[in-house]
Amino acid sequence: MAVYTDVSDEDVDDFLAQYALGEALSCVGIAEGIENSNFALTTTQGPFILTLYEKRVREEDLPYFLGLMEHLAGIGIPCPTPLPGRDGRALRRLNGRAAALFTFLPGMWPRRIQPDHCAEVGESLARLHLAGAGFAEARINDLSVADWRPILEAAGEAVDDLRPGLYAEVQQSLDELEADWPKALPIGAIHADLFPDNVFFRSGHVSGIIDFYFACTDAFAYDVAVCLNAWCFERDLSFNATKARRLLAGYERVREFSEAERQALPVLSRGAAMRFLVTRLFDWFHTPDDALVTPKDPLEYWQRLRFHAAVDGPGAYGLD
Amino acid sequence: MAVYTDVSDEDVDDFLAQYALGEALSCVGIAEGIENSNFALTTTQGPFILTLYEKRVREEDLPYFLGLMEHLAGIGIPCPTPLPGRDGRALRRLNGRAAALFTFLPGMWPRRIQPDHCAEVGESLARLHLAGAGFAEARINDLSVADWRPILEAAGEAVDDLRPGLYAEVQQSLDELEADWPKALPIGAIHADLFPDNVFFRSGHVSGIIDFYFACTDAFAYDVAVCLNAWCFERDLSFNATKARRLLAGYERVREFSEAERQALPVLSRGAAMRFLVTRLFDWFHTPDDALVTPKDPLEYWQRLRFHAAVDGPGAYGLD
Repeated sequence: MAVYTDVSDEDVDDFLAQYALGEALSCVGIAEGIENSNFALTTTQGPFILTLYEKRVREEDLPYFLGLMEHLAGIGIPCPTPLPGRDGRALRRLNGRAAALFTFLPGMWPRRIQPDHCAEVGESLARLHLAGAGFAEARINDLSVADWRPILEAAGEAVDDLRPGLYAEVQQSLDELEADWPKALPIGAIHADLFPDNVFFRSGHVSGIIDFYFACTDAFAYDVAVCLNAWCFERDLSFNATKARRLLAGYERVREFSEAERQALPVLSRGAAMRFLVTRLFDWFHTPDDALVTPKDPLEYWQRLRFHAAVDGPGAYGLD
Repeated sequence: MAVYTDVSDEDVDDFLAQYALGEALSCVGIAEGIENSNFALTTTQGPFILTLYEKRVREEDLPYFLGLMEHLAGIGIPCPTPLPGRDGRALRRLNGRAAALFTFLPGMWPRRIQPDHCAEVGESLARLHLAGAGFAEARINDLSVADWRPILEAAGEAVDDLRPGLYAEVQQSLDELEADWPKALPIGAIHADLFPDNVFFRSGHVSGIIDFYFACTDAFAYDVAVCLNAWCFERDLSFNATKARRLLAGYERVREFSEAERQALPVLSRGAAMRFLVTRLFDWFHTPDDALVTPKDPLEYWQRLRFHAAVDGPGAYGLD
């Protein structure tokens, strides 16, 4: 939880003067979010979200992210809409940071995941995948199978401090993933980070999907595999097959999987677990002790990965 | 900046059900604030602030703080109003913490203090002092002259690590303050922590005064002395006499100082600097490295204290 870059009352007034969105009533730093600085900015016209982009987001990627959100919001996906200023541009600068103003989405992210949430998320994810079809831009997934090994190596053999032998085990798992990674699945714009804190619900339905800053062009089924990891394990890291079944059934109510996608779910799920394992390992060993954000336990993803490595087919996730 | 205790969507719904204030639309943790956990809670009836009290606030003091805010808001001081639930009570529990819901105040606190801000703050402080007159409750200031020495001693001689000889110098200054501390000044309900981040402005005027969790019964002029320390020094710690003069003149537009208050301003200002010096020294040496909040530099207040120790009378602050 963090606001890395503060904004002054004068900053906010000057910034808002570039929009036709009223005058500032209040601007409050939001505690959640670990990549960027976010503010709940209320003007005489209502509530908005002000985002200042910090160093973990590459500025050259911002037009893709903002363009995708604008595209998706325009066809009914409940994601933040970047708002253009009087000059027509949505992306500008504030306090030395790239910055943008967004619509405010109602709802809260669910702290205790129920199977109904999973069904809703699956359905919303499929809608997002279909809605992305008309979006012309592309962005390579820079956290995919070829990127995991360099990240592990940057974390270094110190990962064995977390668990003796872990470094070699992860390397072996990387060998297998690199060999088995599917290459011909349907692709398009994916969210790639659809964790519970990025999905707002209201009255039991999805009211907001946020944080598109890992979005990219990749296999739809990989996005589903991220969700299986993010939504279908309990706190004790046991796999909840009911949640998985509901999530996949929700998805298929909107978009059916191809046979290749079905068969690829176990290896994609293993890969999705690896993606979060290696970035968490990197953060674990590279976060300064005085950082505003506490690194998350990487081993949770090693345990998920081992679950996916042991399943005997897509039936384990509730698919026939 | 911190949210220490998270609240779930179910927590918020259950909590709001105890009020007649509509249904939750969103609930966002606020990054600012170091004592408690605060959330911007928007319901179908508008925006509110939800506060969960953390361990630094004593629960037995909460009825005083909430009662004072209710009293002040009721006679026009722009401070948060604690909102009663359907049972008439404003103070209840949430997630194992004492918790209350407040009106939301517009405005932003000023990051760059101008003399006009000081004039406004002085005027608002005097209004607050007059408005407190009808409030029957009292609370002893537990961070006053008798409390500073034990806090220094709890910080320990390690304070010399910050500056060689500091511990003995502060002790000598405490000797002087204990001997010189005025005892017969006009008293009443004071804020006792009116720093810039506790005062919201809108269109150049004070629109909100928040954070009454150090409020107590003490000398009005001591509250003014806290403001002289908090508002009238530049970033390089030079004293800005114009700001002080405007602050005091603003105050006297509403409430005139007695001669005894005037003469006491230098020693009160020294004491106010000591109060923040010793608590910052304590925090400096007692904050765990992994805490969410970074301790503030104590030496800033040693420098202020030395300024006040060197002035030759209330004229230094712009009083005749």
